[in-house]
Amino acid sequence: MAIKSIDDLFIHELSDIYSAEKQLTRALPRLARAATAPELRQAFETHLEETQGQVERIDQVVETLGIRLKRVKCVAMEGLVEEAKEIIDGIVEGPLRDAALIGAAQKVEHYEIASYGTLCAIGKQLGYKDTVGLLQDTLKEEKATDEKLTMLAERAGNQRAAEQG
Amino acid sequence: MAIKSIDDLFIHELSDIYSAEKQLTRALPRLARAATAPELRQAFETHLEETQGQVERIDQVVETLGIRLKRVKCVAMEGLVEEAKEIIDGIVEGPLRDAALIGAAQKVEHYEIASYGTLCAIGKQLGYKDTVGLLQDTLKEEKATDEKLTMLAERAGNQRAAEQG
Repeated sequence: MAIKSIDDLFIHELSDIYSAEKQLTRALPRLARAATAPELRQAFETHLEETQGQVERIDQVVETLGIRLKRVKCVAMEGLVEEAKEIIDGIVEGPLRDAALIGAAQKVEHYEIASYGTLCAIGKQLGYKDTVGLLQDTLKEEKATDEKLTMLAERAGNQRAAEQG
Repeated sequence: MAIKSIDDLFIHELSDIYSAEKQLTRALPRLARAATAPELRQAFETHLEETQGQVERIDQVVETLGIRLKRVKCVAMEGLVEEAKEIIDGIVEGPLRDAALIGAAQKVEHYEIASYGTLCAIGKQLGYKDTVGLLQDTLKEEKATDEKLTMLAERAGNQRAAEQG
C-alpha cells in the first residue's frame, strides 16, 4: 500500500470496492439459486444486474479521470461472501435460510454503503464533480437494495407470525 | 454451523457480533493512538467505552434469555480490522491517515449496523421485547458513531480545501 496523497487514497478505495463488486458478481448467482422465496431470488437477480452496472460505472470513473486501479483483493468482502456460503451449506432451503441470507446480504450492502460514502466524500474534496455523480448513483442503489431486503425480512417475519398465531 | 430454527439463527448472529465487538475492543485503542486529529482520537476513545458497554449489553441479553453463545470468530470483522492495520502501517501520521482511518471505521460501523438491524428484526419476531430494546440502544449508538465520523471527515475536508484555496 503506497498512499501518499488524497488522490492515492481515492484510487485505493476505488480499487478495493472494484474488487468487492467483482467478487459480488460471482457470489450473487449462487445467492439467487439458494433463495427459496421467489421475491428474494428476484431481488438477488436484480441486484446482480445492478452490480454489473456498478462495475461499469467504476470503469467509467477510471476512464474519465485517466487513473489506473491497483490490483487489490478486498479481504472484507471475501469474509462477507464466506459467511454467505456458510449459510448456504449450513441451513436447508426454506424461510430460515432466506432470513439468514437476507442478513448476510445486508452486511454486504452496508459494506458498500460505507465504501461509496467515503469515495463520494473524498471525490468531492478532489473536485471530481462528474465522477462523484456516478458514485452517488451507485450509493443510492445500494441503499435502496438494503431497504428492499429489510422489507422482505419484515414481510417474511409477519407471515411466519401469522402462521403461528 | 447448526442452525435449525429461528432461535438458532438469533444465537448465531449474536455470537458473531459478540466476536466482532470483542475484536473491536482490542483494535480501537490502536486506532486511537494512530489518529492525528485530537477529535478523531477522542471519537475512537469514546467509541471504545461504548463498545465495552455494548459487549455488556450482549452479556445481559444472554443472561435474560438463558441462552449460550457459540464460539465463533467473525471473519468479516477480522478482514475489516486487517484493513485498518494496513492503513496504520502504510500511511504516515497526519490528515491523510486520518481520512483513511475514518473510512475504515465507517465500514466497521456499517457492519455492526447491519448486524444489529438483523438481530432486532429476528428478536422482534421471537417476541424478545426487553432484549430487542437493548439491541436497539446499541444500534442507535452505532448509527450515531457513523454520523460523527462523517462529520469529522467533512470538517477535515473543508479545512484542507480552505488551506489550499
